[in-house]
Amino acid sequence: MDVIDIIVTKRDGKELSNDQIDWVIDAYTRGEVAEEQMAALNMAIVWRGMSRSEVGRWTEAMLASGERLDFSGLDRPTTDKHSTGGVGDKITLPLTPTVAACGAAVPQLSGRGLGHTGGTLDKLESIPGWRAEVSPAEMQRILADVGGVVCAAGTGLAPADRKLYALRDVTGTVESIPLIASSIMSKKLAEGTGALVLDVKVGAGAFMKDRESARELARTMVDIGTDHGVRTVALLTAMDTPLGRTVGNALEVTESLEVLAGGGPADVVELTVALAREMLAAAGLAGAKDPAEALHDGSAMDSWRRMVAAQGGDPDAPLPVAARTREVLASGSGVLSRLDAHAVGVAAWRLGAGRARKEDPVSAGAGITLHVKPGEEVRAGDPLFTLHSDDPDRFERAEESLAGSYTIGGAYTPRPLVIERVE
Amino acid sequence: MDVIDIIVTKRDGKELSNDQIDWVIDAYTRGEVAEEQMAALNMAIVWRGMSRSEVGRWTEAMLASGERLDFSGLDRPTTDKHSTGGVGDKITLPLTPTVAACGAAVPQLSGRGLGHTGGTLDKLESIPGWRAEVSPAEMQRILADVGGVVCAAGTGLAPADRKLYALRDVTGTVESIPLIASSIMSKKLAEGTGALVLDVKVGAGAFMKDRESARELARTMVDIGTDHGVRTVALLTAMDTPLGRTVGNALEVTESLEVLAGGGPADVVELTVALAREMLAAAGLAGAKDPAEALHDGSAMDSWRRMVAAQGGDPDAPLPVAARTREVLASGSGVLSRLDAHAVGVAAWRLGAGRARKEDPVSAGAGITLHVKPGEEVRAGDPLFTLHSDDPDRFERAEESLAGSYTIGGAYTPRPLVIERVE
Repeated sequence: MDVIDIIVTKRDGKELSNDQIDWVIDAYTRGEVAEEQMAALNMAIVWRGMSRSEVGRWTEAMLASGERLDFSGLDRPTTDKHSTGGVGDKITLPLTPTVAACGAAVPQLSGRGLGHTGGTLDKLESIPGWRAEVSPAEMQRILADVGGVVCAAGTGLAPADRKLYALRDVTGTVESIPLIASSIMSKKLAEGTGALVLDVKVGAGAFMKDRESARELARTMVDIGTDHGVRTVALLTAMDTPLGRTVGNALEVTESLEVLAGGGPADVVELTVALAREMLAAAGLAGAKDPAEALHDGSAMDSWRRMVAAQGGDPDAPLPVAARTREVLASGSGVLSRLDAHAVGVAAWRLGAGRARKEDPVSAGAGITLHVKPGEEVRAGDPLFTLHSDDPDRFERAEESLAGSYTIGGAYTPRPLVIERVE
Repeated sequence: MDVIDIIVTKRDGKELSNDQIDWVIDAYTRGEVAEEQMAALNMAIVWRGMSRSEVGRWTEAMLASGERLDFSGLDRPTTDKHSTGGVGDKITLPLTPTVAACGAAVPQLSGRGLGHTGGTLDKLESIPGWRAEVSPAEMQRILADVGGVVCAAGTGLAPADRKLYALRDVTGTVESIPLIASSIMSKKLAEGTGALVLDVKVGAGAFMKDRESARELARTMVDIGTDHGVRTVALLTAMDTPLGRTVGNALEVTESLEVLAGGGPADVVELTVALAREMLAAAGLAGAKDPAEALHDGSAMDSWRRMVAAQGGDPDAPLPVAARTREVLASGSGVLSRLDAHAVGVAAWRLGAGRARKEDPVSAGAGITLHVKPGEEVRAGDPLFTLHSDDPDRFERAEESLAGSYTIGGAYTPRPLVIERVE
């Protein structure tokens, strides 16, 4: 096999063979194919795309580069969710214990945040004592006992994807549907789930800005999952405005607790229930307990408490709060017709809730409380946002990001949260 | 400046700014931009191309990465030729002394061969004592004394191109007209010539297989030269069949001596004279001595002998011959209607005349004598080729390459050697 032949094949718009894909992923993981060669191949893939068969094999090859977890010995079916990332997207927190309370096991390998969207592990790490690192044996035990585990992916899972993602990040080759789809799916298939629901975000605060490309990504991932024997469904959901009324690590845990207690913002509840129903249906538990009921009868909260405790967290400990807060007041009166998710995400990031580089720490207490959501009335002088930060010098830059992020007055058109379903 | 922004700009089909180009070439040469980032950018350029302004600036930035020779102090104008490479293309050997004999100075920086086309320096190195390494000060002295110098480019000239070419070679990004044009032109402009004639080969034995892409390459290079104040002209010339009757290092020197003595194959003489006239015209010497006369009155041969001697070579020393020869006989009778340049080039390479890797040595005596050229009659049993090699084990693989390389009988259509002129 010659790597230049493989690059030239894709560059010239031809299909890669299974052998070529297997060889190049393996040789790259072993260091035989150089970073610059894989970078050129990646750019050729951004250019030419991949067929269903190619992207499936590419995923399979990345999966084969590492270990694969197996939870088939559990006495209940496994099901998981993956979100492509949005602002205020804390859904994994109420969702995982809710689905566990309804009878499925949820083995959720999650990540940390980078840039304007937060990471699930960063949010959970604001709970005193909670740890993200869990061995496969512990995962098995927690799933059997509690039914849900949210933890960091071990370095042994899909190492090819880990290496490839770091390369794409510095070579302008992130924006490719087959590369995004295979990256996500190689990790989710390595996780050993039997069913998978994908939450593909669409809009200003999402990676996919338009419905067309979000649908194509969803379709590609559903095909890969299905071809690998995992029941896979995708929901396209709106990410024009933040989910819920909080953006930030501990702030989002607090809001998740409200949802688990039967309250919380309507959009977070709606999406949690919709995704939970899909996860249960995909796992063959359509007739089991309804997720909305689990949120109201305390069983989801009970699962949450056991989940947190199983990973060393104290579910009763007070959560960290930021050292300083500042209110941003409405400059006019009327209906809030627009609140831009991306600008709010950037503001929260600037307050300390996110990181610019992988090595950076995050602040548990930093973030933003949204007092008004699109469609709600506001009067001049009312609080619009509360900013939370440990460092008062950060408020100014956060306010800059928020300055043009909203419109008071003008037409407000309510839009559905769940836009489309891809099966 | 952010390299990812630059990659993404080109990936998305937008034009790079002058500042972006200057920065990325400089930062890459200094090692600040990583190989994988430049590889991704190169593939994006293969995909999206470059505008006239971009490719001019890209060339300029590579030129600025190193030193630039200056022969403006000479008492005669400088002019040079570059060929994109063909099989049996020994034209530089008779051409340089011919143009020198007609009153111009020719500062020719040349290369070694790789793959199926030979390198001018490899050919000259078959002359006992001749050395390719000449300092800029020596170049100046030889140009003033003799009028022509063919030597290796120093590492100080366009180091960005040197680094970039090595990268393109291993990343499937050689095939891009703007990248090819800027690579050639950065070296030729660094060489300090005042006029330049480009011999762009078209056909089966050339890098450019069709007239369209050859014309585009010629046009791109002529534009770059013109924009940089160098009078630049290109000829598109046929490379379907080898030039002359020899392919190989010492064999081609011998054939060049025949041309310099007023004889030699008609096609080699025709192209030498055509290119020499263009070089002289571009240098403002259109009314000077005619090159055809210089080949017949001994003045071109005299220049050759002084050129060779100036670089340590002995013009009277016998040239190396291969240890073994083998004849390949015609299997039928009729007109030779086709002789494929690429197959002959590969056969000569297999006999030891070329190298597969940069580090490989070449054999001075190895190569092929062509007894019959397209359009000539042959009878069954007559010799078609004589193969020359130091290693008799190489004959078989060379014969394999030649097996399907020619057609005896069938229609023969004479085609012009000089196809088109681009100014």
